[in-house]
Amino acid sequence: MSKLVIVKIGGYILDNDDDLQNVIRSFVTIKEPKILVHGGGKVASETAKKFGIIPRVIQGRRITDAETLKIVQMVYAGLLNKNIVLKLQSLNCNAIGMSGVDANCILAHKREIIDIDYGYVGDIEQVNADILKSLLNLQLTPVLCALTHDGNTHMLNTNADTIAAEVAGSMSIFFDVELIYCIDKEGVLRSKEKIDTVISKITRKSYQEYIRTRIISDGMIPKLHNAFRALDRGVKQIHIIHFNALERFNTNEMAGTTITER
Amino acid sequence: MSKLVIVKIGGYILDNDDDLQNVIRSFVTIKEPKILVHGGGKVASETAKKFGIIPRVIQGRRITDAETLKIVQMVYAGLLNKNIVLKLQSLNCNAIGMSGVDANCILAHKREIIDIDYGYVGDIEQVNADILKSLLNLQLTPVLCALTHDGNTHMLNTNADTIAAEVAGSMSIFFDVELIYCIDKEGVLRSKEKIDTVISKITRKSYQEYIRTRIISDGMIPKLHNAFRALDRGVKQIHIIHFNALERFNTNEMAGTTITER
Repeated sequence: MSKLVIVKIGGYILDNDDDLQNVIRSFVTIKEPKILVHGGGKVASETAKKFGIIPRVIQGRRITDAETLKIVQMVYAGLLNKNIVLKLQSLNCNAIGMSGVDANCILAHKREIIDIDYGYVGDIEQVNADILKSLLNLQLTPVLCALTHDGNTHMLNTNADTIAAEVAGSMSIFFDVELIYCIDKEGVLRSKEKIDTVISKITRKSYQEYIRTRIISDGMIPKLHNAFRALDRGVKQIHIIHFNALERFNTNEMAGTTITER
Repeated sequence: MSKLVIVKIGGYILDNDDDLQNVIRSFVTIKEPKILVHGGGKVASETAKKFGIIPRVIQGRRITDAETLKIVQMVYAGLLNKNIVLKLQSLNCNAIGMSGVDANCILAHKREIIDIDYGYVGDIEQVNADILKSLLNLQLTPVLCALTHDGNTHMLNTNADTIAAEVAGSMSIFFDVELIYCIDKEGVLRSKEKIDTVISKITRKSYQEYIRTRIISDGMIPKLHNAFRALDRGVKQIHIIHFNALERFNTNEMAGTTITER
């Protein structure tokens, strides 16, 4: 099978234009077919504020009421997604910006209310791998924002890490997929704030141990959960790297943390 | 050649959800490959106001400074374009929302300053008919908003009537194109506000006469200018109809005004 590279960039990268420009320049040098997935960033919260909406976040997840969803849709699908596509096109990468509703590429359902009503937040049901493959066959580079849809006129806010993992998993039936999470640290760190404590390899077994000993905690847990889920679904390589390290992609000297079965 | 239907809907249709729903339901019944082009609507001005931006319009064209462009990009590409795609997808029409930068489908240049600096307003250079055809071949229905790009990281605000005409013209090398402008009147009217004065046919010759006698004026002139330009470029049929009349598309009883060579 031929290779597909899926790169996910965090929202904070989008908050700084120089950082974004660097990451995009690195992304463009990837010769293989590729997909970019991006999160939100501060601009969503800032825009919401201008509309008099106070952002609410519970357990790291934004609570998305109908008004917030409108803002998120404007900022993610309109402002940020297109800004990335504009930059990619200027570097001759034939990008096509998409949310989950476009070409029905990511179908989801509204998260059921158990303890918390997250509002218009979607849990992915199905990634339309066929259409993404067809777009790649046209030499296009899909750029996916953190929005899915329910097939019934509702956009749903969906975590970009999860989208990257689910897309990677679904595309594994067609490609040898390499999934790269670009974050603002050097990788998964043994000790927070100490960049020389990068864990170079995390296996399923060591992951459990790191959780038990609280070396891995907070936001890194769902990210790694997504990574292992992608591994389950046949993704060949998974890396968590500093976004500046993406420029070394073609050297095969992948820094950061590699997620692997054993 | 097989047929392609291109429907352009005005921004005012997007201001009323019932109207939009009706138009979209009619659009979905069109069996041929199709493309939808949409304008802006009041929501762009309203959103700009929330950001403290006062909209400026000269000769029917919005002046687009950098801040206004951000709003326009959010509203056109994020809010409106995706709302339309959401509705189409819920009716099993496999729509893909696009601005001119996506798949590099519409390249433009910033309008030169002669008397007025329109700001980030684009005049179309090239429609990428190949990629639109490829997307249609995948059974996708492109939904184009009123944004083009300059290939150098700038989005440009571009009149949706012009986009519809240029896309129609460019697609004429592959298809027998039918271009339909949906407006909020019954067609081109001989006497404003009197719906029983629809001019059923306008030829190039009668068009000049209508302008001379000021029967056709204001916003209808650029629309007809676009229509005749599309005709020049090989578009087979051009209609200007009331948006509610789109539901009669399949009956071949096209109401409204037909634009034709003679």
